[in-house]
Amino acid sequence: MNSELPAASWGEPRSREISWHDPSLGATAGRSMSGMEYLTAMVEGRLPAPPIAQTLGFTLTSVAEGEAWFSCEPDESHYNPIGMVHGGLVCTLLDSALGCASHTLLSAGAGYTSIEIKVNYLRAVTSASGMLTAHGWVTKPGRRVIFVEGDARDAAGRVVATASGTCLVVGST
Amino acid sequence: MNSELPAASWGEPRSREISWHDPSLGATAGRSMSGMEYLTAMVEGRLPAPPIAQTLGFTLTSVAEGEAWFSCEPDESHYNPIGMVHGGLVCTLLDSALGCASHTLLSAGAGYTSIEIKVNYLRAVTSASGMLTAHGWVTKPGRRVIFVEGDARDAAGRVVATASGTCLVVGST
Amino acid sequence: MNSELPAASWGEPRSREISWHDPSLGATAGRSMSGMEYLTAMVEGRLPAPPIAQTLGFTLTSVAEGEAWFSCEPDESHYNPIGMVHGGLVCTLLDSALGCASHTLLSAGAGYTSIEIKVNYLRAVTSASGMLTAHGWVTKPGRRVIFVEGDARDAAGRVVATASGTCLVVGST
Amino acid sequence: MNSELPAASWGEPRSREISWHDPSLGATAGRSMSGMEYLTAMVEGRLPAPPIAQTLGFTLTSVAEGEAWFSCEPDESHYNPIGMVHGGLVCTLLDSALGCASHTLLSAGAGYTSIEIKVNYLRAVTSASGMLTAHGWVTKPGRRVIFVEGDARDAAGRVVATASGTCLVVGST
Repeated sequence: MNSELPAASWGEPRSREISWHDPSLGATAGRSMSGMEYLTAMVEGRLPAPPIAQTLGFTLTSVAEGEAWFSCEPDESHYNPIGMVHGGLVCTLLDSALGCASHTLLSAGAGYTSIEIKVNYLRAVTSASGMLTAHGWVTKPGRRVIFVEGDARDAAGRVVATASGTCLVVGST
Repeated sequence: MNSELPAASWGEPRSREISWHDPSLGATAGRSMSGMEYLTAMVEGRLPAPPIAQTLGFTLTSVAEGEAWFSCEPDESHYNPIGMVHGGLVCTLLDSALGCASHTLLSAGAGYTSIEIKVNYLRAVTSASGMLTAHGWVTKPGRRVIFVEGDARDAAGRVVATASGTCLVVGST
Repeated sequence: MNSELPAASWGEPRSREISWHDPSLGATAGRSMSGMEYLTAMVEGRLPAPPIAQTLGFTLTSVAEGEAWFSCEPDESHYNPIGMVHGGLVCTLLDSALGCASHTLLSAGAGYTSIEIKVNYLRAVTSASGMLTAHGWVTKPGRRVIFVEGDARDAAGRVVATASGTCLVVGST
Repeated sequence: MNSELPAASWGEPRSREISWHDPSLGATAGRSMSGMEYLTAMVEGRLPAPPIAQTLGFTLTSVAEGEAWFSCEPDESHYNPIGMVHGGLVCTLLDSALGCASHTLLSAGAGYTSIEIKVNYLRAVTSASGMLTAHGWVTKPGRRVIFVEGDARDAAGRVVATASGTCLVVGST
């Protein structure tokens, strides 16, 4: 099949160095902080960002009671094999936004795990989408389950994806 | 709050260089190939892996009619702020597996986009989970919509997540 | 096991007669009407309600461009085996609201089918919940796929469930 | 608009009487029984079927450890306004199958509520589909959350829908 590409024709690879700090530092510190304290420290750079955020290039930009916002500038390193930003990037931003929105409601000593998430892909994302903003908000708090929703928007404010999920509260007092 | 960590105490950052090839090469070549031809060329290294796979460190290992398999060794660079592998990695693997399972059914000239995906997180994933395998399979093909499901398993074969999604066929003849 | 109940102790059954009209009447009439015309005729009683609405006791109360509202008074006939209104009633109301919200955007000759729906059950529903209102709205229209969301509220306005779904447009010109 | 139908032309309504027993009888009895005992008593007719099953005409036909099966013959009373069986019937059967599959794992004194469900509609259902069978199975049990999946098939064994959901265990000892 003549449409295949000999590796010699692939051109120079592009590259980027990613770096992160030991994730156990933040996770350990987090155990003695409420969710709001922990996430606020992260927003303000007083705790290291988690490795996944460094790897994919996204940032927790803001938190409020029951809400969280992330931003990410999609670039070529996020592309899938069909010439667009991989849906997994959008899922990751939304999973982060929903999880952290839940986390803001937890007191010190409590934790959470995501039970499930559903993402609707409304619009294709490319590097031309500009800065993405993912916003998560709690639709119903609970001692055991927290219901959360969210959306991701491109730089023009158009919704590119929406999400619906749930988190399980663990270790709560 | 004494649980915060001055940056001086964060220790040496760990780092990794990621590199990828121009994603338009593969996407362009793919237009004249059937899904099976395109994905097989990728499995066999005759086309460059997509950037997102290089960024997150996962690999398309195998395809069959209506099925696709990915693998990924989760490591510290995938960690979230609560000390585990970020659910977004699992979503990305499953979104890939479901999308490529759909893609195997498409003839040259046809494309697809993911409409939505829902992921159930059955078990926490850490670097101790070992090599993850994500498997996607078509539950119902269609000229317009393809229904797909999948699961992700750890090195011990335990299901860590399941997924249910749909893809829209576009440009089909 | 002494907790079983001999049928003689079940008491008098309660009963209700349900009645409906031939559903092919409305479906046939609908083919020559736009979605808004068709649904408006149903709201205004100029077309018979669909059988499922008679069976479960719910009503399409209002439509607008890209939106639809249903109401239903939950009663004992909707109860599940664990002493609450069955989640399926809420799913049915939300599936209706999302589908009809999509339908309002279709011109005569076009139809749709629901691809999938995800429902979050935020609060238990009982006959004490009072009149439920399900509201569906389009989050992104499209020639092929329409993205829709919705919520269901009790008589006090509290959200009891949210939904996220997609519809496939068929036969559009 | 001449496609409207004066009520005089709607023809004779069709009707059916539905009847059920006080749902508190079963729910009360259930509190002292394990899930398997309770559901087995229901399969065997030693407890009254829940009202929703009478209203919609479906039956719990079998249970096993972590599994449940329902059947339902779709008829005209389940039709939606676009000439097919309403997706809500399929959701109701699947929500039942997933919930009861979870319930089989619970000991006396424990209960559950459905957290969420996602349903993929693979094929349209009509009265020609014949007897539907909905099967639910637990993909991962848990002390707090039970993960469940399921499918619904027509009389020919073709999958008409699949479901993915989660249940919260409550009151467990």
